Amino acid sequence: MKVETLRWIDGHLEMIDQRVLPLEFNYLSYYSSSDVSEGIRTMVVRGAPAIGVAAAYGVALEARANLGSDKEIFVEKIEAAFIELADSRPTAVNLFWALRKMRDLFDRIINKLPMSEVSEELLKLAHKIYDEDIQINLRMGSFGAELLPDEATILTHCNAGALATVGHGTALGVIRSAVAMGKKISVIADETRPFLQGARLTTWEMVQENIPITLITDNMSGLLMSEGNIDAVIVGTDRVAANGDVANKIGTYMVAVLAQRHSIPFYVACPLSTIDLTISNGEQIPIEERDRDEVTGFRDLQWAPEGISVRNPSFDVTPAELVSGLITEKGVIFEPSRYKIGAICAAKK
Amino acid sequence: MKVETLRWIDGHLEMIDQRVLPLEFNYLSYYSSSDVSEGIRTMVVRGAPAIGVAAAYGVALEARANLGSDKEIFVEKIEAAFIELADSRPTAVNLFWALRKMRDLFDRIINKLPMSEVSEELLKLAHKIYDEDIQINLRMGSFGAELLPDEATILTHCNAGALATVGHGTALGVIRSAVAMGKKISVIADETRPFLQGARLTTWEMVQENIPITLITDNMSGLLMSEGNIDAVIVGTDRVAANGDVANKIGTYMVAVLAQRHSIPFYVACPLSTIDLTISNGEQIPIEERDRDEVTGFRDLQWAPEGISVRNPSFDVTPAELVSGLITEKGVIFEPSRYKIGAICAAKK
Repeated sequence: MKVETLRWIDGHLEMIDQRVLPLEFNYLSYYSSSDVSEGIRTMVVRGAPAIGVAAAYGVALEARANLGSDKEIFVEKIEAAFIELADSRPTAVNLFWALRKMRDLFDRIINKLPMSEVSEELLKLAHKIYDEDIQINLRMGSFGAELLPDEATILTHCNAGALATVGHGTALGVIRSAVAMGKKISVIADETRPFLQGARLTTWEMVQENIPITLITDNMSGLLMSEGNIDAVIVGTDRVAANGDVANKIGTYMVAVLAQRHSIPFYVACPLSTIDLTISNGEQIPIEERDRDEVTGFRDLQWAPEGISVRNPSFDVTPAELVSGLITEKGVIFEPSRYKIGAICAAKK
Repeated sequence: MKVETLRWIDGHLEMIDQRVLPLEFNYLSYYSSSDVSEGIRTMVVRGAPAIGVAAAYGVALEARANLGSDKEIFVEKIEAAFIELADSRPTAVNLFWALRKMRDLFDRIINKLPMSEVSEELLKLAHKIYDEDIQINLRMGSFGAELLPDEATILTHCNAGALATVGHGTALGVIRSAVAMGKKISVIADETRPFLQGARLTTWEMVQENIPITLITDNMSGLLMSEGNIDAVIVGTDRVAANGDVANKIGTYMVAVLAQRHSIPFYVACPLSTIDLTISNGEQIPIEERDRDEVTGFRDLQWAPEGISVRNPSFDVTPAELVSGLITEKGVIFEPSRYKIGAICAAKK
């Protein structure tokens, strides 16, 4: 089964409800930017590239929903949509990157075209961002797949798969591309507490494609590395600073430190839209803290006692020195540095 | 509330059912060694020192239960109890240590005393192992407490508390002793998947005594260390090899590697009964693999899809080079080595 994380259908957006996978598989429908913001905030959709695309559609939906209004109201509503969508989650830069693209277009055309054409142009751009995402993932996939031996066991953390993107995936895209090239790949998935993206989503994606997958808890990868059972680590990222520091799902940093100790290559699949040149290093990346009840249990099953404090940072920062390579759609940046990242980003323009 | 993990009452053993804490608090009653073995295997009781004490009572129970039999049957039943109890869990050496003590006594008296006196002597020895456990924990506690600054935030992994022992605890015993000395200690607990000893048991113990406790998932300690929010790590252990390698709950190794990177002291609270001089280094320690459904969910809530493989090693080994000190009842062994460990173990005799 091909995974369609988001889809535009009959004039509205549909997204797989990733909170209930794999026990339930269903699409939720979205008709307004507020609903899309809520979907991003509550993690119906998650993964840096996917929430960028969802936000772009959120703007397009808001324009369509207000075509019957006065121009003034139309503009106000879209302005509000930009603000609300940007406020839905703080760490992944793709959200702001996609909104910036939509914003630039909107500013360029709002005083030149009638509302209906503005709406159409916004939707066209959302479609373009959607289409490009898959193309970029396929290109990253083939660059990344070249890095892997013909037989390899790959550890991944969280879900940087089709479900984190429009399709194919970033980290899992590399794995899919390697398998498509005929390489014999098996995957080890960290379960990735508290939201269990690894246990629920990465496993589910791999099962769909018959790629061998082994589930472990987040505290087991060190032992598996010391057993010699992991050939490489590949993860996605929510934001990469200009110096190559990588923000990704909480726990990534610990995996990277262990990988270095065991001389296991640690790769980050990173579309160029995830690099934030306005941020000098990882310390400046805002780290979201989410609700305590994600940590004190899972969904309705709460297992911790009353009367305790909780921390729930959603991301951490892996320093560039621990990154063997950033796999981008323009090629692999080995041992990433400010200079190499600047050069590849300049070349994209 | 004082935690009584196990207690001998009205001629039988009672143990807190640690599988259902903290949502339910109740004692289960044990009348035979088979039931005690099952209780150890299913983790009604867990924690290296506690299962040692439980096993000792298991032998005593079996003797009492067979006082009405012929001597031959009496001996057979007790022999079988030794085998079954030794087979209940493989990693924690305290189980074998306690059974060895019971065995030595049994061999010494079985042909000299009537069955009723054999039974009484076995029970007396179980009581002695029980009483000594608390005394040892109190001594470890005061040696360990001296290591901590007057104000400190301590990370711990799994539960090495009163619930893992007869009372007071090993790692949490150090924290209790430090608090009793007037030090201002707050605790950070790794939730410790898959069995959630941190989220369920360590939190619960600390709440009982009003010691400030913060719960995190197992993949967060790296970030908290990089924030500068952890002053020391203290964990328990299930078996220490002659060279100082430490087997403890899965994930301990990753915490130790991160602690070293951040120059945070990593202490192991280790009664001398947990040191196994017959084992040269950590590679020889048998690591238990438990059932897959512990990893694919928690209790009845299963969240992973069908069709996947699972690993579930319960323990890992932290090399001695990562251990700042072994806190024993005879003092702290800083930078443990084969020589230092041999010396302190020789002194105990």
